[in-house]
Amino acid sequence: MSFMAAALAVAEDAGAAGEVPVGAVVVQAGQIIATGANRMLRDHDPTAHAEIVALRTAARALGTMRLSGCDLYVTLEPCAMCAGAIAHARIARLYFAAFDPKGGAVEHGPCLFQQPTIHHTPEVYGGISETAAAELLRNFFRQKRSPAVKNPDALPRTA
Amino acid sequence: MSFMAAALAVAEDAGAAGEVPVGAVVVQAGQIIATGANRMLRDHDPTAHAEIVALRTAARALGTMRLSGCDLYVTLEPCAMCAGAIAHARIARLYFAAFDPKGGAVEHGPCLFQQPTIHHTPEVYGGISETAAAELLRNFFRQKRSPAVKNPDALPRTA
Repeated sequence: MSFMAAALAVAEDAGAAGEVPVGAVVVQAGQIIATGANRMLRDHDPTAHAEIVALRTAARALGTMRLSGCDLYVTLEPCAMCAGAIAHARIARLYFAAFDPKGGAVEHGPCLFQQPTIHHTPEVYGGISETAAAELLRNFFRQKRSPAVKNPDALPRTA
Repeated sequence: MSFMAAALAVAEDAGAAGEVPVGAVVVQAGQIIATGANRMLRDHDPTAHAEIVALRTAARALGTMRLSGCDLYVTLEPCAMCAGAIAHARIARLYFAAFDPKGGAVEHGPCLFQQPTIHHTPEVYGGISETAAAELLRNFFRQKRSPAVKNPDALPRTA
């Protein structure tokens, strides 16, 4: 399974739990050392995007706040919060799947890694498995809007 | 004690523990419901800025990922990660002390709350108790650079 396929599997689990389906994995020396699913609703945590969860888990596992040499795979273009965290963690390479013109902060909006004040910039590869990730999100929001949803309380109030 | 004085006290505690001295408090209806100190080194957590710690603690206490109607007081201008988290948490008013031309993302760099794609913008009041907060940071970094530091292992490897 490719690293992005692993991130997509994590995203599917998040969606099954009623969270916006985004998943991330941290890779060091060819091995997945941490995974992260979007957990904002489950954890009552406005910071619990998939990337933040994965970065925190990886850093705790390695016993350092720096993930130099590690790569992050995530199924959606990171927002400003997550792009900032990626810079703080010193991630070497960022691979993301779907582009996010509304909330993304890597190729859209503030384009954070192109800002002169950014203190670390990873290599960035966007659009890996883009179709699969976008389809997962599209299906989730289609189901969310559907009146036939069985348990609306399990779904997020906002994206 | 004013809310910013409370945030400064938290920042002093962080500095005493060898962390860059930044502190934050979340206020709801005139009461402090959460505090957060910078804990990046202690927790091996690249996301553990004072603001993130305070927001997570407040959200967990209230049992919701949205802190609508809550205010955040922090001793340093938030970075992009923290400004993004403040938007996700729907903080009503942001009060910060020292300005941060190098790492700040509110009045400097990407000026995140002025970006057209930002989905929530708090009221922003910068420069509250600016002198005290800046002095705390200056003293910390002066001591860090000093060869007379008694316990260099307790100090952060990087800012």
